[in-house]
Amino acid sequence: MQGTARTPSPSETAYTPTDRTVPTRSPDRASYDRDLVHAILDEAYVCHLGFVRDGAPVVLPTLYARVGETLYVHGSTGSRPLRAAGQADPGLPVCLTVTHVDGLVLARSAFHHSINYRSVVVHGVARDVTDPEEKRRALDALVDHVVQGRSADSRPANKKELAATAVLRLDLDEVSAKLRTGGVNDEPEDLALPHWAGVVPVRKTYGTPVPDPDLSADTALPDYLQGR
Amino acid sequence: MQGTARTPSPSETAYTPTDRTVPTRSPDRASYDRDLVHAILDEAYVCHLGFVRDGAPVVLPTLYARVGETLYVHGSTGSRPLRAAGQADPGLPVCLTVTHVDGLVLARSAFHHSINYRSVVVHGVARDVTDPEEKRRALDALVDHVVQGRSADSRPANKKELAATAVLRLDLDEVSAKLRTGGVNDEPEDLALPHWAGVVPVRKTYGTPVPDPDLSADTALPDYLQGR
Repeated sequence: MQGTARTPSPSETAYTPTDRTVPTRSPDRASYDRDLVHAILDEAYVCHLGFVRDGAPVVLPTLYARVGETLYVHGSTGSRPLRAAGQADPGLPVCLTVTHVDGLVLARSAFHHSINYRSVVVHGVARDVTDPEEKRRALDALVDHVVQGRSADSRPANKKELAATAVLRLDLDEVSAKLRTGGVNDEPEDLALPHWAGVVPVRKTYGTPVPDPDLSADTALPDYLQGR
Repeated sequence: MQGTARTPSPSETAYTPTDRTVPTRSPDRASYDRDLVHAILDEAYVCHLGFVRDGAPVVLPTLYARVGETLYVHGSTGSRPLRAAGQADPGLPVCLTVTHVDGLVLARSAFHHSINYRSVVVHGVARDVTDPEEKRRALDALVDHVVQGRSADSRPANKKELAATAVLRLDLDEVSAKLRTGGVNDEPEDLALPHWAGVVPVRKTYGTPVPDPDLSADTALPDYLQGR
């Protein structure tokens, strides 16, 4: 599979559940729908990447991008997980998790307090990308995943920068989404209690872009940042 | 340490770095300052909890709360990590990570694109909370960590709900913060390139609270939600 991102046949509308992607709790909140998983992944750009070092878990935040059925993460060639993946055969077992918080659910009972969220959990083996063309495409995707259109409006990485950057690929095979939506689920006998109940929406917002002090005054804010 | 949250002596203003809390990359972005770590932890309420199952990493989003030098997470007594922690002696090795995204850093070069962020990584052993008083305090803290003052304005958990809920504690001993702040770090020879460069601020915002349809019309929005 090295060299190109995996493309599923159009008939595959869902990921196949496995023992570790079927949750023990609230299985009704789990989904394997490919479009839903893609939408959750495409709306974020920071994931939490877990791996095992000396038998103990490590979880680090890092940028990622999706290209078809492949996720890419990158980092310095000197970073521990990237080095480990490059040295391991066939790669580094990882769990990559992405979470959006959509709301605070305040129930009348403390027990039924909850969070509206959408998350994706990907299990698999991360492999070092060695093909130069795939690596370059992955790096473009990492920039564009944060700001669509940006990679074409920046100086591409030179040889030295490419050599200093390691890219890992993780195919979307063992994948699940989990989400909670909707309102409060109080017990019927609690409905008359005097406590306020409802949902407080939460979302990510962008402030006014702050230009670099060295930017020449005639460099306009690009279209892809308008409305951020 | 069971029964009470750990309280450090006032002289301990920083956590002691260990082999796994000193990053291999960008060590200048790491901090062990206790107040900074607390501030990062107190501003979020969803963490990513990593543990090892059958030799492979698992990373799940979950709520947490801080009480002094102790973090608490909770879940159903039927959930896999909670069950594993209850059965393991002395507990479940975990890595708990909290991340805030503060800005998108757009450099003139693709290579220097970055994210402004603040994160905390906690390594340790999560232990099942068995003391009923500590468990109740932890559950109150979990509600109040999301909305300060809310636990006093909701029906407390009853015996059945308490029995269905497992709480894990994780002491803040092996802890580090890592953060990037500030502007663009382009190479001097790139400064004249025609690409826009700067920082797009990112933050979490709250929408207007949506009352539960069953809420009686005379239940006012509580003070602790005003301004959310």
